[in-house]
Amino acid sequence: MDIHDLTRSLHVKNESKIVMLVADGLGGLPQSADGQTELEAAKTPNLDALATQGIQGASIPVKLGISPGSGPGHLGLFGYDPIQYLIGRGALEATGIGFELQQGDVAIRCNFCTLDENGNITDRRAGRIASEDSAPLAIRLREVSIPGIKVFVEPVKEHRFVVVLRGEGLAGEVDDTDPQKTGVPPLAPHARNDASQRTAEVAAEFTRQAVELLSDQKQANGLTMRGFAARPQLPSYEEVYGLTAAAIAVYPMYKGLARLVGMNIVGQAQTLAEQIDLLEKHWEEYDFFFIHYKYTDSTGEDGNFDAKVARTEDFDAIIPRVTALNPDVLIVTGDHSTPSFLKSHSWHPVPTLLVSDCCRPDGKQAFSERECITGGLGHFEAKYLMSLALANAGKLGKFGA
Amino acid sequence: MDIHDLTRSLHVKNESKIVMLVADGLGGLPQSADGQTELEAAKTPNLDALATQGIQGASIPVKLGISPGSGPGHLGLFGYDPIQYLIGRGALEATGIGFELQQGDVAIRCNFCTLDENGNITDRRAGRIASEDSAPLAIRLREVSIPGIKVFVEPVKEHRFVVVLRGEGLAGEVDDTDPQKTGVPPLAPHARNDASQRTAEVAAEFTRQAVELLSDQKQANGLTMRGFAARPQLPSYEEVYGLTAAAIAVYPMYKGLARLVGMNIVGQAQTLAEQIDLLEKHWEEYDFFFIHYKYTDSTGEDGNFDAKVARTEDFDAIIPRVTALNPDVLIVTGDHSTPSFLKSHSWHPVPTLLVSDCCRPDGKQAFSERECITGGLGHFEAKYLMSLALANAGKLGKFGA
Repeated sequence: MDIHDLTRSLHVKNESKIVMLVADGLGGLPQSADGQTELEAAKTPNLDALATQGIQGASIPVKLGISPGSGPGHLGLFGYDPIQYLIGRGALEATGIGFELQQGDVAIRCNFCTLDENGNITDRRAGRIASEDSAPLAIRLREVSIPGIKVFVEPVKEHRFVVVLRGEGLAGEVDDTDPQKTGVPPLAPHARNDASQRTAEVAAEFTRQAVELLSDQKQANGLTMRGFAARPQLPSYEEVYGLTAAAIAVYPMYKGLARLVGMNIVGQAQTLAEQIDLLEKHWEEYDFFFIHYKYTDSTGEDGNFDAKVARTEDFDAIIPRVTALNPDVLIVTGDHSTPSFLKSHSWHPVPTLLVSDCCRPDGKQAFSERECITGGLGHFEAKYLMSLALANAGKLGKFGA
Repeated sequence: MDIHDLTRSLHVKNESKIVMLVADGLGGLPQSADGQTELEAAKTPNLDALATQGIQGASIPVKLGISPGSGPGHLGLFGYDPIQYLIGRGALEATGIGFELQQGDVAIRCNFCTLDENGNITDRRAGRIASEDSAPLAIRLREVSIPGIKVFVEPVKEHRFVVVLRGEGLAGEVDDTDPQKTGVPPLAPHARNDASQRTAEVAAEFTRQAVELLSDQKQANGLTMRGFAARPQLPSYEEVYGLTAAAIAVYPMYKGLARLVGMNIVGQAQTLAEQIDLLEKHWEEYDFFFIHYKYTDSTGEDGNFDAKVARTEDFDAIIPRVTALNPDVLIVTGDHSTPSFLKSHSWHPVPTLLVSDCCRPDGKQAFSERECITGGLGHFEAKYLMSLALANAGKLGKFGA
């Protein structure tokens, strides 16, 4: 069962507004068994005040024990089953650099490599060539010309770049050409089904021309392709929820993920304060706002407990500007936990808070990992959060008579 | 979705060790509404100490309200959906007496019965013939000879015995031959599909020869067949989790269940202390240990509250020897509840405790039915316990980028 099978037919339009504040990697861990998590250690008077008015719970990003990447983490929050809707690596890489994939596009993660005179790979990552050296090479590859196909080439970082193929009859089921070892040539692109045959042919022709264009280069004169992926076909927010939705994010990855579900990308904020400026400015135009805050994740990834505490406090400090707008439903959550203890995304449930005038408050006095496990929302899979949001906003009709 | 679809591709190898202590039938009930359960009444200082370091929750063996047998109870704990993976009755009976089923074997539960001169059943259980009388009869049936088929006959208890057929082209979809009444002959074996046709023919021939071999017997001169079943095809622990796993159990049933998922059966322990001796001895050889303790179940089945309390205390007393080994992940759970109040397996969630350095402790001070329902693991289906174990052991990579 897909929850969208219900929301698609039950959603109704009204004037109410939903704000979803996503503090990336929000959940954490104590540094010792009797210690506090980052969120518990942080002074969060505004979130705690919301907790007294709202209802909280423990959101499971995918399934128990599964640590999601940003893709599945956000798809879950957006209400798309993260196991059913997979974003291929090529598509996620293109999304992450802000490339606007269109329906039918095939994106390919590529690595520059070095080849010897016989065409055998000598370094699979071209000595991890510096970004400033590899970017001009990627741009040179824009000269590749293939009839009927529009080819985009975008630098990423070091030896990595992205190729996007746009044209008729392309599909993404093509095997990697990276042989995973040196002393042999890159593999020929091999289609796993008939629909992807043309993609494999185009990829082979791209590679042929690219090697010609790079033939005078010392640092990188070849390439491998890893992670072919078509743009994922996700039904839109408008279709499944009846929502006109805005995404206010700083980083391209989160704008891209929001774009995949049909949100409009609003503005060019560089700070959380600027994001809230945009929220205020566009308040009348949308009924759903996704606001992404990165630094609770990046500090966790760095393993910096104190910095994560500080960034959590920065996040808390912005809350009054959001509540001043009187959203009908305000959600505070994360796409996964990023405990600084683990320096990585983790499987731990994410403290999630929902405030509305009909949320059935659970009487909690603080917002934290410890409180959320006995909160009124219980322990729930993240993919159900959107139906709760719609219900609290009065945007879901009755199921059955 | 099968959680193994995720674990199969995400598991990684490392040096960490997981111990799963299964106290069979652990969960209980109070004798009156304001009373304590067996686990709450027991003095369990060691489990309570673990609770302060760990995280607990309420494990639902199958689905709410469903009381599992030992087969589905353990499959759930092992992470195999107990509704998807069924162990047929014949296969479970063979497993329970320690018979090592091979892929392609068909096992059949059989009952001795008595037949009159016309071949009609006069007693479907042969007067519940004593085990010491029926065992020689079962052994006599080993004289049955069927070309191309290896036939195993194993006594069980009273009128019950097991037949295992080994050979090419056998499947387990054959109807019971027990007509469920007297005054009529046993039914002919009837295959429910083409693949099981040969099994039905072999079963008919076995029955014909058996009746000849028993023709001079007064106590039991016939048999019925109930519960044909092929060995269940379960993917192995190595395949789905990347784990080399050891099972340390006293009773054949639990060794057999562990063998079905590819665990190695270690030693011949007769007591819990001897089981822990084996755990210590084989500590370096495996990364997962399943240790089965029977007496919390058997005392519950007996309806003996005080004995179950005492056996729970015995179980608690062994904990320090396990923690002394410093397992990276220690799990204490049961395959189902066996409240002495009900004298049977029950549907009640099982208190389940997980301890690791990254488990996110929930601040509980005791391990019990009452505490687990508000624990940090929430209420969860047992089949997700293994993915939690792997995650806490650092043995699961990230899902998606």
